[in-house]
Amino acid sequence: MGGDFAPACVVEGTADALREHPGRFAAVLVGREERIRDEIRKLPEDAQRLLDDGQRCSIVHAKDVIDMHDSPTAAVKSKKDSSIGVGLTLQRSNHADAFVSAGNTGAVLSASTLILGRLKHVGRPTIGALIPTAKRPCLLVDAGANVDCKPRHLFEFAVMGALYVKAMLGEANPKVGLLNIGEEDSKGNEAVQAAYKLLAGSPLNFKGNVEGRDVLKGDVDVIVCDGFVGNTLLKFGESIPSFFKTKFTALAAKSLKDKIIAGLARNSLRPILKELDYQEHGGVPILGVDGVSIIGHGRSTPKAIKNMIFRAEEMVTGMVHQQIEESLAAVQPSSDERPIPIHTRKHE
Amino acid sequence: MGGDFAPACVVEGTADALREHPGRFAAVLVGREERIRDEIRKLPEDAQRLLDDGQRCSIVHAKDVIDMHDSPTAAVKSKKDSSIGVGLTLQRSNHADAFVSAGNTGAVLSASTLILGRLKHVGRPTIGALIPTAKRPCLLVDAGANVDCKPRHLFEFAVMGALYVKAMLGEANPKVGLLNIGEEDSKGNEAVQAAYKLLAGSPLNFKGNVEGRDVLKGDVDVIVCDGFVGNTLLKFGESIPSFFKTKFTALAAKSLKDKIIAGLARNSLRPILKELDYQEHGGVPILGVDGVSIIGHGRSTPKAIKNMIFRAEEMVTGMVHQQIEESLAAVQPSSDERPIPIHTRKHE
Repeated sequence: MGGDFAPACVVEGTADALREHPGRFAAVLVGREERIRDEIRKLPEDAQRLLDDGQRCSIVHAKDVIDMHDSPTAAVKSKKDSSIGVGLTLQRSNHADAFVSAGNTGAVLSASTLILGRLKHVGRPTIGALIPTAKRPCLLVDAGANVDCKPRHLFEFAVMGALYVKAMLGEANPKVGLLNIGEEDSKGNEAVQAAYKLLAGSPLNFKGNVEGRDVLKGDVDVIVCDGFVGNTLLKFGESIPSFFKTKFTALAAKSLKDKIIAGLARNSLRPILKELDYQEHGGVPILGVDGVSIIGHGRSTPKAIKNMIFRAEEMVTGMVHQQIEESLAAVQPSSDERPIPIHTRKHE
Repeated sequence: MGGDFAPACVVEGTADALREHPGRFAAVLVGREERIRDEIRKLPEDAQRLLDDGQRCSIVHAKDVIDMHDSPTAAVKSKKDSSIGVGLTLQRSNHADAFVSAGNTGAVLSASTLILGRLKHVGRPTIGALIPTAKRPCLLVDAGANVDCKPRHLFEFAVMGALYVKAMLGEANPKVGLLNIGEEDSKGNEAVQAAYKLLAGSPLNFKGNVEGRDVLKGDVDVIVCDGFVGNTLLKFGESIPSFFKTKFTALAAKSLKDKIIAGLARNSLRPILKELDYQEHGGVPILGVDGVSIIGHGRSTPKAIKNMIFRAEEMVTGMVHQQIEESLAAVQPSSDERPIPIHTRKHE
């Protein structure tokens, strides 16, 4: 029931996913049953059959709806029978392996943490977003879950992000960069400076600081930052295509010649701008919870939903969350060098 | 002596500025005299005459050079006779009205604060960068001077930024937005939430939160954020043109047809990408110091230097720093509602 076009887009995207990869997964549509059935009836016959064969797809009723304006934590508590709550509980009780939603980001995040629980050694679950670069996509982590981060949290994001890239994109030894405002390790705020030390002393393939200007270069596979910066960068990047569209429209209005030029540029830019489009990337995974949970953009199209389902399936098959727990266990400090109070070290 | 192409670009840019607006200002070139004279001799004759007429341009020798790798505060203290130190001291002693440099940003910032002094009511001087948007340019403030900000600092940045836009761009009542990760006032980290309250209760034309996706829209004239986020966004934005260039080159390599398309797109995009280019914007002003000081990009071209000189002249004529002091005086809280310890209010 989440997202601006729910449940229509969710139902249609699920049918598309089942059509593209029959037999790879079974879907459980969670939400107001009547509304879901209404949407199914609007689809072409072959899609209706896919969603109604009782084997590859089933419907679980959830009476409550958490909308985009609900306060996340309050809504998760007061609307226990929301599609988010019911869907995650299905996973908790082993009736599902993964959860996918285009609903209220904060609510999916806090319900996932609450219902699935945190993995061992995880201080804060995080969300990581794959962003396009001049080379391969790069994981920006945290992409908006945690706005105030301690050095230890940034370190955990790096470990989880590297493991995710390794498991999902097949990068054997992902290169990790720390987002900062300069190259030198003395740059940045206190949290980032202390995180630098933790990362430099870890077994991660840490490449040092990366600046805003390096993000699109694609020289690293994981960029670590707090959720305030990450979310701002992510949304800024997503807005580039519409910035160019506005500029083209203004250009086209000037003269016939400019109109032709704008048209040509618009067409040839399309594949590049498309890369910057969130729709292609299929949602952001929550890392650090004991299960698989993926959050999609509120404006997710059927295509985005389909991609999220495929990604969820890959995370289950790749046993990403089990591997994250092992990764974090391997980098735990011995008891005499606990890094938790690292932010007090500045007076050393 | 500052910047990657100093003193050549500085000397050339100064000649260009004198040629374009003779009589509007007089230049003092500060640095190693011999090096400066060498560069002057390389210029065309008319430029040499402009720089050597003893009236519109003079040279003041400064033996030390602070380079990009020097630690800012240490260098300002140990290299007292740097072009930065000598240039700012000329202003302090009323032998100059403004200072312009493409040198070490941190050094210019701390020397400006140290030598010119802070204006009354200013907790932290800041730097504001004009960035292109779909509409008018917008001032991003802080653009990298202060990485850890208290709510009170963010509030001051807003007041100084609004005044700057009013004085320099002629916006009668500049619209101010607070960079955040959501529209609601409950969003964001502690500092931003508290700053929201200060801004909402002020006489500024405060439009609430703006997100990363809103930056390029241009719906506000001033965007307030801490220097970590601001610097990251600024550098990310500056990197967009080279991201597109890389993509075009990759496209052109595919086939002859793609090569033609890439060429057309590259040409038609040029004016738009040019807007995103820092060179056009002529440096960032330091706001909150008792004088005029502008920092340019390390890679400033003669054109950027020229624009910085013009901007400095406008700031002097517009009496921007005097006006900033008045603006801040007008929004000082009465003694029974001091906002300084606002970060303790969270338990109210």
